[in-house]
Amino acid sequence: MRHRSTVLAAALALACTGLQAQSTQAADQPDAAALRETANALFGPVPHRIEQVRGQQVTAAQVELGKSLWFEPRLSRSHVISCNTCHNVATGGADNVPTSIGHGWQKGPRNSPTVLNAVLNIAQFWDGRAEDLKEQAKGPVQASVEMNNTPERVEATLRSIPAYVEAFRKAFPGEREPVTFENMARALEAFETTLVTPDSRFDQFLAGKDSLDATELRGLSLFIDKGCASCHSGPNVGGQAYFPFGVVARPGADVLPAGDKGRFAVTQTASDEYVFRAAPLRNVELTAPYFHSGQVWDLHQAVAIMGSSQLGHELDAAEVEAIARFLKTLTGRQPQVTTPLLPPSTSTTPRPE
Amino acid sequence: MRHRSTVLAAALALACTGLQAQSTQAADQPDAAALRETANALFGPVPHRIEQVRGQQVTAAQVELGKSLWFEPRLSRSHVISCNTCHNVATGGADNVPTSIGHGWQKGPRNSPTVLNAVLNIAQFWDGRAEDLKEQAKGPVQASVEMNNTPERVEATLRSIPAYVEAFRKAFPGEREPVTFENMARALEAFETTLVTPDSRFDQFLAGKDSLDATELRGLSLFIDKGCASCHSGPNVGGQAYFPFGVVARPGADVLPAGDKGRFAVTQTASDEYVFRAAPLRNVELTAPYFHSGQVWDLHQAVAIMGSSQLGHELDAAEVEAIARFLKTLTGRQPQVTTPLLPPSTSTTPRPE
Repeated sequence: MRHRSTVLAAALALACTGLQAQSTQAADQPDAAALRETANALFGPVPHRIEQVRGQQVTAAQVELGKSLWFEPRLSRSHVISCNTCHNVATGGADNVPTSIGHGWQKGPRNSPTVLNAVLNIAQFWDGRAEDLKEQAKGPVQASVEMNNTPERVEATLRSIPAYVEAFRKAFPGEREPVTFENMARALEAFETTLVTPDSRFDQFLAGKDSLDATELRGLSLFIDKGCASCHSGPNVGGQAYFPFGVVARPGADVLPAGDKGRFAVTQTASDEYVFRAAPLRNVELTAPYFHSGQVWDLHQAVAIMGSSQLGHELDAAEVEAIARFLKTLTGRQPQVTTPLLPPSTSTTPRPE
Repeated sequence: MRHRSTVLAAALALACTGLQAQSTQAADQPDAAALRETANALFGPVPHRIEQVRGQQVTAAQVELGKSLWFEPRLSRSHVISCNTCHNVATGGADNVPTSIGHGWQKGPRNSPTVLNAVLNIAQFWDGRAEDLKEQAKGPVQASVEMNNTPERVEATLRSIPAYVEAFRKAFPGEREPVTFENMARALEAFETTLVTPDSRFDQFLAGKDSLDATELRGLSLFIDKGCASCHSGPNVGGQAYFPFGVVARPGADVLPAGDKGRFAVTQTASDEYVFRAAPLRNVELTAPYFHSGQVWDLHQAVAIMGSSQLGHELDAAEVEAIARFLKTLTGRQPQVTTPLLPPSTSTTPRPE
């Protein structure tokens, strides 16, 4: 559970502080200085670089190898699907369809989460079943509805290509057999640490600049005061803890399908039914459609649904608009990725199937 | 026909000149200077830049827009397939599977040709049915087994996204309605003019450097003397004219399926049965599997099949190896492409289907 209740309590306490700080201001004219202080306590900026994972330095050789693997369609059984297919760095780190299309045109069960800033999340997947990006990376490669591959076949593929053998040796020096499924995952994680989006207008605001207009400031204020920030907190404005979807009123089955009980599948605990990791909201304007079901295309509609289902507030149109405008200030500087040049297969490379 | 017979005659004449130039040398010790002169006459280097198409200057704004469209999955009905899916700039400009996988996981009828240096070809597609890259670009977007979209839907998609409207306006200034399917194709073509691969070791040799070793020189000599260069000529070492596959001996139905009569479908002329555009061989080491059927993975095997089916020569293992070694010197400097940042959809953007 990773101290879910502690995180929740802290977030709620901070949100209440926010409420108090705002209470002396007219609702439509938030005090920017007080709001900045509250926002810095609740969220914090996206870092410019992540240099370590699990206490270990990420090396340039690992990042470079990870970039090749990120775009490598031969990690899939078909040789057609790469990590970037569903987590496209050109489109907000996601695929912008309700649920991803995988091997054999099968549709996955949940909306593809963005890879951008994913390293900041408490855990990976909508239900947090992978504790970090290394573990996460092993999932889609093997999932039959995604890349439909096996660790053995991935290792055989990579070992058959001399340039990959050399790249793994450089990325994991001193290992007797560096070309492993585990190291594939480590390299992918290393590359993903570079996929952060700093310097959003919101982060400029946090740093003291007047980068938000009156509506955006009001949206931020509402986001805190109405309680959104109780769940969507931390530098990724979400991704920090788990909460039930439909805490006040359960949305329709189109948005919250009865067949997907979320984190219950991970913990087998009744209280985790329909519990999901709070969606990280950085770059949310780039990652429609929304929710784990991917059934809501409009950010305004998503905000309104959250208000009613999670907070019991029927937000009015002006409130929804202000919050949506604030959310669009969370779009940061997107990573500039030069596509790698992937080495050709050899006679021993397994063929696509 | 684009003067097919004239091109063929010229190529054969040049190949014969090559034969004469080589005839005074021992077969395994070609004279590099004479070979260079012959090779310059037969092939020529890949240019560093293509600045014009159809006599019109390609602009930076067109290239930039074209790059976005190249990686744009919303050109497909599913919002999952982009041009780059099947003509991947990370993997030699092709997809390295026998035939491409398209909408609904349908398999296309022919192997995906590389986009690299495609601008140098006499016409596009294996059967030359598109006279240039602009016309070619319209095909896969509409093909039901590929992107399965319509011009109307593409235009509606692009017009729904303000950043695209602005980019089309800059790329095609002065036009009343610049966001058209036709201009999509023009922009894609403009980007594709940048996907050339100059400075291969072969081109360095053509320019006077000693960049080929003895085996590679012998391979080049054999490539000319055995007659390969009769069809595979010009700067793209192919792509210049049409020839029957199986001119001497028809290969098996696995390699040359009876149901695909090639250029016959374009011209309805009996003599065009099983006629295809000679494959351009630049970067051929990156573009397996080979032939329009994509059924041959090994470059050596492809060379041997060409020898027997097209030239009536049973090339021995050393000859095949030397020719394959020469062909690998055709790998040029691959384009460095930074992935674009694609603008988000709006409420009026057609949804994926």
